[in-house]
Amino acid sequence: MGSALVLFSPMTDRSPPKKYTIGLVQMAMSGDPAVNLEKAIVKVAEAAAAGAALVCLPELFRSQYFAQREDAALFDLAEPVPGPSTEALGRAAQRAGAVVIAPLFERRAPGLYHNSAAVIDADGRLIGVYRKMHIPDDPAYYEKFYFTPGDLGFRAFDTRVGRIGTLVCWDQWYPEGARLTALQGANVLFYPTAIGWHPAEKDSHGKEQLDAWRTIQRSHAIANGCYVAAVNRVGRERPQGAATDGLEFWGSSFIADPFGSVVAEAPTDRETIVFGEVDLARIEEVRRGWPFLRDRRIDAYGGIVSRYLGDAS
Amino acid sequence: MGSALVLFSPMTDRSPPKKYTIGLVQMAMSGDPAVNLEKAIVKVAEAAAAGAALVCLPELFRSQYFAQREDAALFDLAEPVPGPSTEALGRAAQRAGAVVIAPLFERRAPGLYHNSAAVIDADGRLIGVYRKMHIPDDPAYYEKFYFTPGDLGFRAFDTRVGRIGTLVCWDQWYPEGARLTALQGANVLFYPTAIGWHPAEKDSHGKEQLDAWRTIQRSHAIANGCYVAAVNRVGRERPQGAATDGLEFWGSSFIADPFGSVVAEAPTDRETIVFGEVDLARIEEVRRGWPFLRDRRIDAYGGIVSRYLGDAS
Repeated sequence: MGSALVLFSPMTDRSPPKKYTIGLVQMAMSGDPAVNLEKAIVKVAEAAAAGAALVCLPELFRSQYFAQREDAALFDLAEPVPGPSTEALGRAAQRAGAVVIAPLFERRAPGLYHNSAAVIDADGRLIGVYRKMHIPDDPAYYEKFYFTPGDLGFRAFDTRVGRIGTLVCWDQWYPEGARLTALQGANVLFYPTAIGWHPAEKDSHGKEQLDAWRTIQRSHAIANGCYVAAVNRVGRERPQGAATDGLEFWGSSFIADPFGSVVAEAPTDRETIVFGEVDLARIEEVRRGWPFLRDRRIDAYGGIVSRYLGDAS
Repeated sequence: MGSALVLFSPMTDRSPPKKYTIGLVQMAMSGDPAVNLEKAIVKVAEAAAAGAALVCLPELFRSQYFAQREDAALFDLAEPVPGPSTEALGRAAQRAGAVVIAPLFERRAPGLYHNSAAVIDADGRLIGVYRKMHIPDDPAYYEKFYFTPGDLGFRAFDTRVGRIGTLVCWDQWYPEGARLTALQGANVLFYPTAIGWHPAEKDSHGKEQLDAWRTIQRSHAIANGCYVAAVNRVGRERPQGAATDGLEFWGSSFIADPFGSVVAEAPTDRETIVFGEVDLARIEEVRRGWPFLRDRRIDAYGGIVSRYLGDAS
């Protein structure tokens, strides 16, 4: 679809399409960042060839999920943005004629690193970067050690397919991030992710964890009347030096429509590309039918910027 | 459970229980407000006898859902708060030893009416009132004609069972209302509701509408690590003078735990009382496991008070 559009009009006066296909690359990561980049480049081409005008990669796709342990040597995995990955994926985007969302471990300065998502337009140009705002820290997800909280706020980006937003993983649990991105006019909220089961918990809690993860993201589609796309990795990763028995990433990448209905979904345990259509008319139809944005009580939401409102007096 | 507690200590030094049962009264409404009140009184007693320490009635339980058409004569259905319903239910609460949430059509002044929920403590005392903040208006739900938007904000109330919050129906689509109530320390968010299918839409859209309704409310439980209880009416109502062929209220009252798991749920088509346990230890367990409240980016949420952030510059 992206490449078909190239035939019709010069870039300078191209209006964004009213309908387009997105492709979510659910992939497993090897221990070699070069191999992961090569795989991502191939997947971008494959997704675009199958019709995707925008391709989203999973969180930190260049490496295995290193935050399973705290090791300062692993900061070597970080790279500047723009940098080698955005350059290679810029070429991939241009060849494919597709927008690419590339989540990267960003080296901003010595000792200052972010968990970021670069947005690359279909002509290969780096449009901008989102830096993960909400940073988790729980056993085997030691992200507060590695990632400085983002300082760019919640963002929407104008791309060849129109306005989209990206957040990253833990952001998915926060309705505020979804709202602030949707209010900027994003038609799709992307959530590149690295989430999985602790193997010891999978039997007892795995089903409800996956269900909560799907539910909260579907709710962002409902509350905001926009598309939501979650893009996860798959595979068991058990890095050297990790105190745990590793993580089993649960895949299940999906696309929810503006009513929260899941229109496409991947399995838990294998690589695939999830495709779904974004239809701007569907956004407007849903928002007209159940017009939530009309009735927001913006006069009464000020307390949202408080940490807590229930302290004993 | 409520009445058992009465035996142990005087009211003045009673600490709220760590665990208690709530009862949600899913009922059908007759055309006679007196009959509906009598039924509600019986249901409060019945729920308490079965162990409920808090009983929640559905939105506007004293009448059929009159907002299916606009008719100024129907303002006669409104009553003051405190008033006849809170007095009768105060006595019912005291007899039952249970907290009661009583959603009422509140007459505040001539020409000034609210869609409210009165919170009555287990000793019969009216603790306070919540006035519906988000007012819908769509075919057969002409609420903007009847209800002035609430001016008391989002609230939590200290009751014999501890701190709880109530919102009303359309509020359920707004993560902001849930967040602001939970941040005040509410352990349970109640959503008394009157929502149903347009009969002509039920086959084509009914399933996804009900699913969206359940999903957005479960998401409030997940995002905030608290219980959520939705309390709906049942039955087909087709009032005289309504331009539509009526509404089929879909019941499906449910209780979600702090992880968003539905722990009790009613059918779509008959009266029942839904019971579920509130366990404060479960709230803390869930919030420790996935500590979303810890990582909120309150420095970056200011835009929430904007109507829109995507206007063309």
